Amino acid sequence: MEKIYARYTALVATLPASVPFVGPEVQERARHAPFEARLGANENIFGPAPRAVAAMQAAAHEIWMYADSESYDLRSALAAHLGCEMHNIVVGEGIDGLLGYLVRLLVEAGDAVVTSDGAYPTFNYHVAGFGGTLHKVPYAGDAEDLPALIDKAAQVGAKLIYFANPDNPMGSYTRGADIIRALDALPEGCLLILDEAYAEFAPADALPDIAIEDPRIIRMRTFSKAYGMAGARIGYAFGATDMIRSFDKVRNHFGINRAAQAGALAALGDQDWLTQTCEKVSQARADISRIATENALTALPSATNFVAVDCGADGDFARRVLAGLVARNIFVRMPFAAPQDRCIRVSCGRPEDLAAFARALPEALAQARR
Amino acid sequence: MEKIYARYTALVATLPASVPFVGPEVQERARHAPFEARLGANENIFGPAPRAVAAMQAAAHEIWMYADSESYDLRSALAAHLGCEMHNIVVGEGIDGLLGYLVRLLVEAGDAVVTSDGAYPTFNYHVAGFGGTLHKVPYAGDAEDLPALIDKAAQVGAKLIYFANPDNPMGSYTRGADIIRALDALPEGCLLILDEAYAEFAPADALPDIAIEDPRIIRMRTFSKAYGMAGARIGYAFGATDMIRSFDKVRNHFGINRAAQAGALAALGDQDWLTQTCEKVSQARADISRIATENALTALPSATNFVAVDCGADGDFARRVLAGLVARNIFVRMPFAAPQDRCIRVSCGRPEDLAAFARALPEALAQARR
Repeated sequence: MEKIYARYTALVATLPASVPFVGPEVQERARHAPFEARLGANENIFGPAPRAVAAMQAAAHEIWMYADSESYDLRSALAAHLGCEMHNIVVGEGIDGLLGYLVRLLVEAGDAVVTSDGAYPTFNYHVAGFGGTLHKVPYAGDAEDLPALIDKAAQVGAKLIYFANPDNPMGSYTRGADIIRALDALPEGCLLILDEAYAEFAPADALPDIAIEDPRIIRMRTFSKAYGMAGARIGYAFGATDMIRSFDKVRNHFGINRAAQAGALAALGDQDWLTQTCEKVSQARADISRIATENALTALPSATNFVAVDCGADGDFARRVLAGLVARNIFVRMPFAAPQDRCIRVSCGRPEDLAAFARALPEALAQARR
Repeated sequence: MEKIYARYTALVATLPASVPFVGPEVQERARHAPFEARLGANENIFGPAPRAVAAMQAAAHEIWMYADSESYDLRSALAAHLGCEMHNIVVGEGIDGLLGYLVRLLVEAGDAVVTSDGAYPTFNYHVAGFGGTLHKVPYAGDAEDLPALIDKAAQVGAKLIYFANPDNPMGSYTRGADIIRALDALPEGCLLILDEAYAEFAPADALPDIAIEDPRIIRMRTFSKAYGMAGARIGYAFGATDMIRSFDKVRNHFGINRAAQAGALAALGDQDWLTQTCEKVSQARADISRIATENALTALPSATNFVAVDCGADGDFARRVLAGLVARNIFVRMPFAAPQDRCIRVSCGRPEDLAAFARALPEALAQARR
């Protein structure tokens, strides 16, 4: 028998090699064909502000230096932007990276964690990866159901609740005032993660007014979506000082890309560009909705840069529609869980991207109906 | 009493908020003055190949896209470069990120891990962060002592040995043939990490010729050092297929910066630039050695892009020299453990950087002797 040298932990031995999402490049290689429209990952094709691009390009010349381990300039600007102190903010390798750190801080084998059935798979991947037990709560009316999540957390003694607002993949949102009201029922010993990846696209009343030192909640935002920098891998969490400081126990202090730091700082400084982006996204949402209507489908309301389009039947039908779109070189995705999987999810694109989608959709629908 | 919502794991509750290194920007803020020469972090001030810079700049325009989760193009090029298969390679967020993943895969509370006393602190940070117990072996003659590391691992039943070749912070190296010979004594159930961050600077006989599927060893290399891209955060591990595949259980699949991927691919493609860099580094090592001699100090031989300079007395003296250099705007670091802490460690720089060092050193020495 061959000798074994790598003795994995008991937990790791039970984990599958997996990936939360199959990326578009991976699909392109499998299909032996590029996508014509990249509308599946809620990327922001309108891109970062030109001054952010310029900052990243300038930083390419100084990429021989490690980044500032404290992300001082960026945290300083974010503190001014958010109206809090620098020590209330930690910068990380995107929300994905920050979720991984947070789960690691709180969750060990057998700890209960609550999320919505069909919510962010990467969070679930982290929870499984640290041995937590996931408890899933159904959506209510295509929205994440915060009171039900909190009820479940109380029942199972959860350490952590994941709640995205606005929601991905449905695009719905919960009013900030309702979040605050729901928090009254949060049990002791349970922290609420408020994933606000899509916050900048949302109506103002989606964002709760919560004291920064409130120990019940940690909020996460990113430069991946509205700021158009998904490939840069930079986001931030903000909340109570002690909680934020705890990230320094486990985070990769020199893990941020130096050009990403510079780009994020420049992007944050161009709020006019952000406003223009949100207008383009709003127009694209209207266009996706119109395309849906033209095909006798129903576009759901969206507070994000994507639209869930109800294909009017069950998950199997929507999966056939999705396959038909992918076969026609349109990269889209869809919700994983019923009954939300009656929808496909289409990211906002430029007019030419949506025109390609509009061309492919009738054929994909016809094929799915055959 | 205030209610507690964040229930940290038992392990996390025992961890300090810490950072393996104090970064130069952090020091500059504390000093209220910039450094004149940045020679402390073994960064490669000669920078990446112009075509790598160009690739990163071009990628800034497409940074709205997440990176390819499989780093397909880069792994393909690395496989050709190394003479192995793509499935023998995993790309990660620098060696720091890959070390974190590997420790997570193998180490749980109380597991024994072996390293050299005074070797890479970030590895130790990861081991502590996953609850491992570190056993440290002294250097032998300013070199990491692989046979002694393996002996210690056998004694304590270690799962993991960390061994850097060439070594940081001393710059020494072990011949590849000696590594292969030492491996014969590696106990079952113990994996050797061969950290080759400085491999490209080293003489050819430093690199062991080991079968890629050898289950006893995992090797790590980086674009941070010879390729001049520390701020990009991209490195790779290579080894047996099963071991490499296990990273897919825990890694942040979409965690690599897209511009870093493009830059690394371009950098790998310009081996002429790498050769030129190594020549500049070789010249800088000779210059540092000469400056040491002019100050009646001894430069140790180096197979890296830095030189350990023996200050001729004890750690307290070297710390005074270091403080004197920092006070004169020269960023350098030094080994942490005795007796290696009789040295300061000076990274290779341009002629103007080393000239600034040469100006500051006599004053720093004089002050340290007072």
